[in-house]
Amino acid sequence: MRPIRTDLAMEHCESDSLPGVHVAAWEENGVSITEVWVETEEGARITEKPMGRYVTLEKPARRDGPEVRLAVSELLGEEIMRMLPGGEGPALVVGLGNRQVTPDSLGPRTVDGTLVTRHLFEALPDSVDGRMGSVCALAPGVLGVTGVETMELVRSVVQTVRPRVVVCVDSLAARSWRRVGCAVQLTDTGIQPGSGVGNHRMALTRDTLGVPVLALGVPTVIYAATLARDAFESLSDAPEEDLDALAEELLGGEMSALIVTPREIDKLVSEVSGVLSGALNRAFHPGLSALEMEEMRGS
Amino acid sequence: MRPIRTDLAMEHCESDSLPGVHVAAWEENGVSITEVWVETEEGARITEKPMGRYVTLEKPARRDGPEVRLAVSELLGEEIMRMLPGGEGPALVVGLGNRQVTPDSLGPRTVDGTLVTRHLFEALPDSVDGRMGSVCALAPGVLGVTGVETMELVRSVVQTVRPRVVVCVDSLAARSWRRVGCAVQLTDTGIQPGSGVGNHRMALTRDTLGVPVLALGVPTVIYAATLARDAFESLSDAPEEDLDALAEELLGGEMSALIVTPREIDKLVSEVSGVLSGALNRAFHPGLSALEMEEMRGS
Amino acid sequence: MRPIRTDLAMEHCESDSLPGVHVAAWEENGVSITEVWVETEEGARITEKPMGRYVTLEKPARRDGPEVRLAVSELLGEEIMRMLPGGEGPALVVGLGNRQVTPDSLGPRTVDGTLVTRHLFEALPDSVDGRMGSVCALAPGVLGVTGVETMELVRSVVQTVRPRVVVCVDSLAARSWRRVGCAVQLTDTGIQPGSGVGNHRMALTRDTLGVPVLALGVPTVIYAATLARDAFESLSDAPEEDLDALAEELLGGEMSALIVTPREIDKLVSEVSGVLSGALNRAFHPGLSALEMEEMRGS
Amino acid sequence: MRPIRTDLAMEHCESDSLPGVHVAAWEENGVSITEVWVETEEGARITEKPMGRYVTLEKPARRDGPEVRLAVSELLGEEIMRMLPGGEGPALVVGLGNRQVTPDSLGPRTVDGTLVTRHLFEALPDSVDGRMGSVCALAPGVLGVTGVETMELVRSVVQTVRPRVVVCVDSLAARSWRRVGCAVQLTDTGIQPGSGVGNHRMALTRDTLGVPVLALGVPTVIYAATLARDAFESLSDAPEEDLDALAEELLGGEMSALIVTPREIDKLVSEVSGVLSGALNRAFHPGLSALEMEEMRGS
Repeated sequence: MRPIRTDLAMEHCESDSLPGVHVAAWEENGVSITEVWVETEEGARITEKPMGRYVTLEKPARRDGPEVRLAVSELLGEEIMRMLPGGEGPALVVGLGNRQVTPDSLGPRTVDGTLVTRHLFEALPDSVDGRMGSVCALAPGVLGVTGVETMELVRSVVQTVRPRVVVCVDSLAARSWRRVGCAVQLTDTGIQPGSGVGNHRMALTRDTLGVPVLALGVPTVIYAATLARDAFESLSDAPEEDLDALAEELLGGEMSALIVTPREIDKLVSEVSGVLSGALNRAFHPGLSALEMEEMRGS
Repeated sequence: MRPIRTDLAMEHCESDSLPGVHVAAWEENGVSITEVWVETEEGARITEKPMGRYVTLEKPARRDGPEVRLAVSELLGEEIMRMLPGGEGPALVVGLGNRQVTPDSLGPRTVDGTLVTRHLFEALPDSVDGRMGSVCALAPGVLGVTGVETMELVRSVVQTVRPRVVVCVDSLAARSWRRVGCAVQLTDTGIQPGSGVGNHRMALTRDTLGVPVLALGVPTVIYAATLARDAFESLSDAPEEDLDALAEELLGGEMSALIVTPREIDKLVSEVSGVLSGALNRAFHPGLSALEMEEMRGS
Repeated sequence: MRPIRTDLAMEHCESDSLPGVHVAAWEENGVSITEVWVETEEGARITEKPMGRYVTLEKPARRDGPEVRLAVSELLGEEIMRMLPGGEGPALVVGLGNRQVTPDSLGPRTVDGTLVTRHLFEALPDSVDGRMGSVCALAPGVLGVTGVETMELVRSVVQTVRPRVVVCVDSLAARSWRRVGCAVQLTDTGIQPGSGVGNHRMALTRDTLGVPVLALGVPTVIYAATLARDAFESLSDAPEEDLDALAEELLGGEMSALIVTPREIDKLVSEVSGVLSGALNRAFHPGLSALEMEEMRGS
Repeated sequence: MRPIRTDLAMEHCESDSLPGVHVAAWEENGVSITEVWVETEEGARITEKPMGRYVTLEKPARRDGPEVRLAVSELLGEEIMRMLPGGEGPALVVGLGNRQVTPDSLGPRTVDGTLVTRHLFEALPDSVDGRMGSVCALAPGVLGVTGVETMELVRSVVQTVRPRVVVCVDSLAARSWRRVGCAVQLTDTGIQPGSGVGNHRMALTRDTLGVPVLALGVPTVIYAATLARDAFESLSDAPEEDLDALAEELLGGEMSALIVTPREIDKLVSEVSGVLSGALNRAFHPGLSALEMEEMRGS
């Protein structure tokens, strides 16, 4: 783990104009939207993020409640729709992370809220209509619980289901605690090794899975080492390299199991998974009302 | 659903000597063990169970507590060891059922308690020794949550992992409420369509998966219709056919969503999943003490 | 336990005109409302329910979804408002039952969703206004977990908090499985000994607590013995007394721990507790929108 | 919140010999035991802890597993026994904190594991014998969920139950992350305002409750502000006052909702609550074996 650990592309691009990186930002319904295109290999090297498109939605840290969550969910649904590739086959939602570890459970809990329909398309084609799409979903578990690399599991299911797109949902780490629970990142670059709260060991990308891979994530933690380094930075005028070295020395191995979360992480994960599954359901089944979706899920 | 619904082979063979069926019964450490071999196609037709071996362990309904559970878990571990085929490759434990529905969550919860080691064998071969075996595990979810048939999911993972055996764990339905939570069935015939609390739609067997398949299950429910029929039977002298017809008419479609469980089903599932995962861990890692296993799981 | 066990007053009054009992029934927004007044001691003896008023709301068994739940919640909120006594002091919501036993957890889970405000009225009077009332809430646990009778615990809190009314919320047993999860009973008679899934041993009534006591409950189970008896009744022409005797003999002690629930009891309890806490919040804080309430709860 | 927030008395006394404070330390079965007596008012002022006795048990941070937990639980049981006052009446265990917030749920979850017997002593005196004591237990919930101060609730129950001692169990905050999940503090001074993860607003002490009050706690969090300050301290030679001022300025209000926990906080709380309830059960029922206790809890 590097001292400055973040899964958010936008945190690499703050207040900078970097070569090979295009940034656009605007606001809609009180939600800040930042779009980062990493357009060249140089840009990828500088940002340490693969080439591709990263959209981040942020709600104001102090505003909350169902109204704000609904606004984020609707805007996110639109962004997902714009990023979804066309073609044949279902969408496959993959909920990454460990259901038994609250800050790492965002992926599996989002899968719980996703309206799956692939089995209806296959078995009861008369029960579906043009207002909904074919969707399937999987929460494969983490390596320590399954003994199998997540990538291997997902790839074998991809070979069976032949989806036109995989959408991975994951808990992320942020650099700024102001983004924990408040920012959603959507990207068409998939999941990189070392990312996520669970520190995935292998990539889930178009290269490894053979189909387009979107990734959707929300920071649920910052690392204790990041927090300590940033606190020190604002109190001293030491050069960057020294700070990194000091942080690494100071906080090294022993602190790596420590995370910083909001005290109410259980509530946060519950609410955020609702925002994400709501956005996915809107993007996949654009003709269904929220009511129809809940009724279908209950059946 | 037939009015007389049971997943336990022994409930088809009670007090009868059937052609093509061999039954043996004995007791060990206060646990009753019944072994049923369905040896011929005639036996399979009569019992409505595929040819193969069925071992049932029953603890006395009124005795309980950690001591009794440990005795069952140890005996079950021995029976699993005797049924496990040799050969190369890991064992793959598949926890069937729906984690969000308590009486159907036995499979996923047993997976939670299983000590997986395949990733250690692959990545850190020096950290394993002859006292443990290679094990991986999966809780694939149910059709209504994933949109993919469980059999399809398991088969695709089998093709990737190439296990020497699959062990499916599932919540069962019994005919006698005295067996709910008290009987464990182990069989080498795999999982049949229509079995289990979740009513699997496709078989998980050597035929469909291409490797030997054991199935391990404990009744967590009886169906309301079964209960009503049996109550009626003991109060009348109507012929069997009439009873079945009446039960079907009386209880038909509307009652099919009703199940009979012990009031303390949450506690029962928690305890029974511990018995099953303990037995699996003993069978797979015969050289490890209970202490070493818990320490490995924590790491 | 008597063979015919029900906590719903209306199940004692079906299709009958009983002396001292007044029954009215109507429909509103697709919800059936039945009001039973047990007006005399004779009526109380016949119905085996204390004198008082019982309002039951039933949604159609086959209709479900958030729309129907909202309609029930709004109508129930109005009925609670009509039954709430005036006067000084907060309302005290008491969630009866055992949080660890799903079908008995309706009370504690309803408390989780109740918007409490008493502490704001006491400490931050400027933060409250006329649109909300003073509310506190308690989930005292069951005798086997606390070692103290629920009535003793509630009475001691009543003496401290001095509420103008206590509203008890509990899981009930019904006679007809069609009412499980579909009927809500509201009464001004409090909680009787032997009622509820948890079989309360002492009354929670105006007599024992010294303040008016409303009780709000939803059947989450029927008893297995009830089901078997009713099945038998519809199949035979035996007299009532014989049926009861037979059921008692047949199903006696051993089956008393068995309950009949819908397979999806976890989901049902989650949804129904939302209906009840929503209705309570509407009745206590009539000036707040649903949005304002959720925002206050989050804070 | 002060920048240096800790609930552990021993963290105020490290490497110091303070007037009015007596410290003893030894090791037993690999567990470090530190005993701090705050003996004078001067000692209380300096340590900012009330006069009384504080016993801390620490397991080595890197050692874990059921064996270590059992050793801590047994030693803790002995220390509790030594601190328990004699006299008539039951012991009342109070589980403080919020069940819905994982790092604050240690108290309620310890209550779940406590063997209560007061109702047997009252109703079935023949079923108890000299090997067990009379125990009752309560998880009252937090102010934001109940609308009633915890102290008010506990005091009203104390007036009803008339216990000879109250034992409060709570999640604590530590200064050193090495103590999270690894140190248990037992004290005879009760609970102070501002202590615990939930920041209790009123004292639970002999003064406020009228009976002796023990408090038992384990750090489950450190505050983000503490961590940042300590990181800064080790990197600079600024005077103490400047550090505190800087930390306060830097981290002030906005970070107060952030906590630092181990990633596996769910597992940690589950294991630690088992250690605490095991120790309480041993202290209260010294004549019962672990097996007998589990059998009684199951009944």
